[in-house]
Amino acid sequence: MPDFPTAEFERRLANLHAGMAEEGLQALLLTTEAEIRWLTGFRTLFWQSPARPWFLVVPAEAAPIAIIPSIGAELMAQTWVQDIRSWSAPHPDDDGVSLLVEALAPFKRIGLPMGREASLRMPLSDFQRLQTGLPDSRFVCASTLLNGLRQVKSPLEIEAIEAMCRIAGRAFDRAPDLFSQGQSLEQAFRAFKIALLEEGAEEVPYLVGGAGQGGYGDVISPPGDTPLRAGDVLMLDTGATRRGYFCDFDRNFAISRADERAKAGYRCLWNATEAGLAAAKPGAAMADLFTAMNAVIEAEFPSPPGQAGSVGRMGHGLGMQLTETPSIVAWDTTPLVAGMVITLEPSLTMAPGCMMVHEENLVITDAGCRLLTPRAAPKLPIL
Amino acid sequence: MPDFPTAEFERRLANLHAGMAEEGLQALLLTTEAEIRWLTGFRTLFWQSPARPWFLVVPAEAAPIAIIPSIGAELMAQTWVQDIRSWSAPHPDDDGVSLLVEALAPFKRIGLPMGREASLRMPLSDFQRLQTGLPDSRFVCASTLLNGLRQVKSPLEIEAIEAMCRIAGRAFDRAPDLFSQGQSLEQAFRAFKIALLEEGAEEVPYLVGGAGQGGYGDVISPPGDTPLRAGDVLMLDTGATRRGYFCDFDRNFAISRADERAKAGYRCLWNATEAGLAAAKPGAAMADLFTAMNAVIEAEFPSPPGQAGSVGRMGHGLGMQLTETPSIVAWDTTPLVAGMVITLEPSLTMAPGCMMVHEENLVITDAGCRLLTPRAAPKLPIL
Repeated sequence: MPDFPTAEFERRLANLHAGMAEEGLQALLLTTEAEIRWLTGFRTLFWQSPARPWFLVVPAEAAPIAIIPSIGAELMAQTWVQDIRSWSAPHPDDDGVSLLVEALAPFKRIGLPMGREASLRMPLSDFQRLQTGLPDSRFVCASTLLNGLRQVKSPLEIEAIEAMCRIAGRAFDRAPDLFSQGQSLEQAFRAFKIALLEEGAEEVPYLVGGAGQGGYGDVISPPGDTPLRAGDVLMLDTGATRRGYFCDFDRNFAISRADERAKAGYRCLWNATEAGLAAAKPGAAMADLFTAMNAVIEAEFPSPPGQAGSVGRMGHGLGMQLTETPSIVAWDTTPLVAGMVITLEPSLTMAPGCMMVHEENLVITDAGCRLLTPRAAPKLPIL
Repeated sequence: MPDFPTAEFERRLANLHAGMAEEGLQALLLTTEAEIRWLTGFRTLFWQSPARPWFLVVPAEAAPIAIIPSIGAELMAQTWVQDIRSWSAPHPDDDGVSLLVEALAPFKRIGLPMGREASLRMPLSDFQRLQTGLPDSRFVCASTLLNGLRQVKSPLEIEAIEAMCRIAGRAFDRAPDLFSQGQSLEQAFRAFKIALLEEGAEEVPYLVGGAGQGGYGDVISPPGDTPLRAGDVLMLDTGATRRGYFCDFDRNFAISRADERAKAGYRCLWNATEAGLAAAKPGAAMADLFTAMNAVIEAEFPSPPGQAGSVGRMGHGLGMQLTETPSIVAWDTTPLVAGMVITLEPSLTMAPGCMMVHEENLVITDAGCRLLTPRAAPKLPIL
């Protein structure tokens, strides 16, 4: 702690203050891990416990105020935040609410992330008490502002994500030693998690995948104990972290042999990713990436009407969270700008219950884009 | 999937329906992972992504209705839930809200967890749209009901927690091979995470700890690169999971040698835990456990005025979350009943910036309590 120099946080705050001025926000209230860490550098696994709320108040023209349980005061004092107000939590009847009322009372128009991808990490009844305690203040949605700022990564953030991508790339390189016929998916997942840690990952909050003859049925289930068979396609999709920044990409492997349809599906997704990479440049929109990748897929593996992109989208933002805004969907017109880190995640369905998905991570540059993940092999690797 | 037989979920629902009847709730709306998994068995790491909300509606006299993104419909269909309504998420302007309005419209008084430890895992603006769409309905807090039911574990849940405790116990048994002088805390954490996975843990969402001469400064920081020195006390506190159920306990080790104060602090916390174990029985209150443990600590390591229990509490509920209600604090009068799984987590401060903490997990039985963790050694182990 902290993971970045103070200048990094000063720049983030300056950008936020500029955005708040444009939107006429006199203050901001944050309750969630990624937003608070983005502005403070406060990084701890303690968010796992729902027992205590954590707050950050950002006045329009001043430094952030941390309003946090006393158990976190010492760690917060190691960040660049100077104004730390704490209470002994959990508290019988006032878990930070009166401290919040005091800090927010001067402000009439207060931003709060209330929109896309936001959640309220405090009891709703406490939020209602806060509103009652601030009869002259109004909370307005700050999601567009915050999502927009967090979408564009600094060079240090890009470095952190790329470091994690390289680590996971080295773990995937060990696939021939890690995965084998007869092994259960559960064993394969365990072996891969250990490999990720050995290669330098600090946390592995997310590892999902699937395996099945020539493709897999879904991509969000926990692993089971069915042994891998010859002809299975095994996919592992990992969101691991280093210094609190995620990679999020997958790799597919055939066990012992691959049928022609699986090879064709793999090749199609590899080509779709190429089309996405070619389209990824400043000025293009997220929807353009969807269109580019979807055209390649529909030409070869047409979806049933209305079901193009069977996982719902074909990529998303990436950073302190496994998935961030924006989304690669037909309706997301967010323009790409240099510094945005996103995943390309095309998928296709070869038959009912038999799908395949590819994923790579990239950063938008002035000239176009640059892969942060080592590119997947152009042909389905056979283990 | 599922982790438990249908009868387990039927019992949970019956208990919930009984509680809803008592409180006059016509339906319940759930948005968070633990609550939805508790009723459905739906277990996935996909909750890591904030892009999509997930909902469960529980009518007062009927089976639960899952209102979820289509990417999860296949997995949900493997649970006992029959009524699954899905939409393609993320959606440009209706992420489940109109489906929620339709499902909740018949009900006037709707329970929602809004109190202690609750959060709202949907955009607040969508919740406001939901309220607008249900002009004749009122949301009331269902936290006391839900927390109370979830606090008492079934035999199968206790088995799951105990299995995870045994796994972590085996990993801690390997301490002499895992931790050594000269190693950084970061290396020690990595080695321990790998050991947890090797011994059978499926996820390691939480590993924190500390190290320092004769004690440590705080217990929520990420590990650093300072090498362990002779005379350091090393503490690791892990919340690892198997089948979605947590253990949450720690162990302390001295590196090469231990000073007398560290030995005395360790012994005092071990004795405090004994006092907690003796007091843990049906009819006692959580506050009684605090009093029993605190008396042992204050006799030997008195706190500065008003700072007894320097981490804020001395234990908590345990189950599908790392920490659950209730809390072992002076003001929590929740009565212990057979089946409750809790942690005892006494801590003390030996000098400014030099603290120690112990933690064990237990289940309340008809006769008293039973440890789920292998009991820590009575004397500070020296590696």
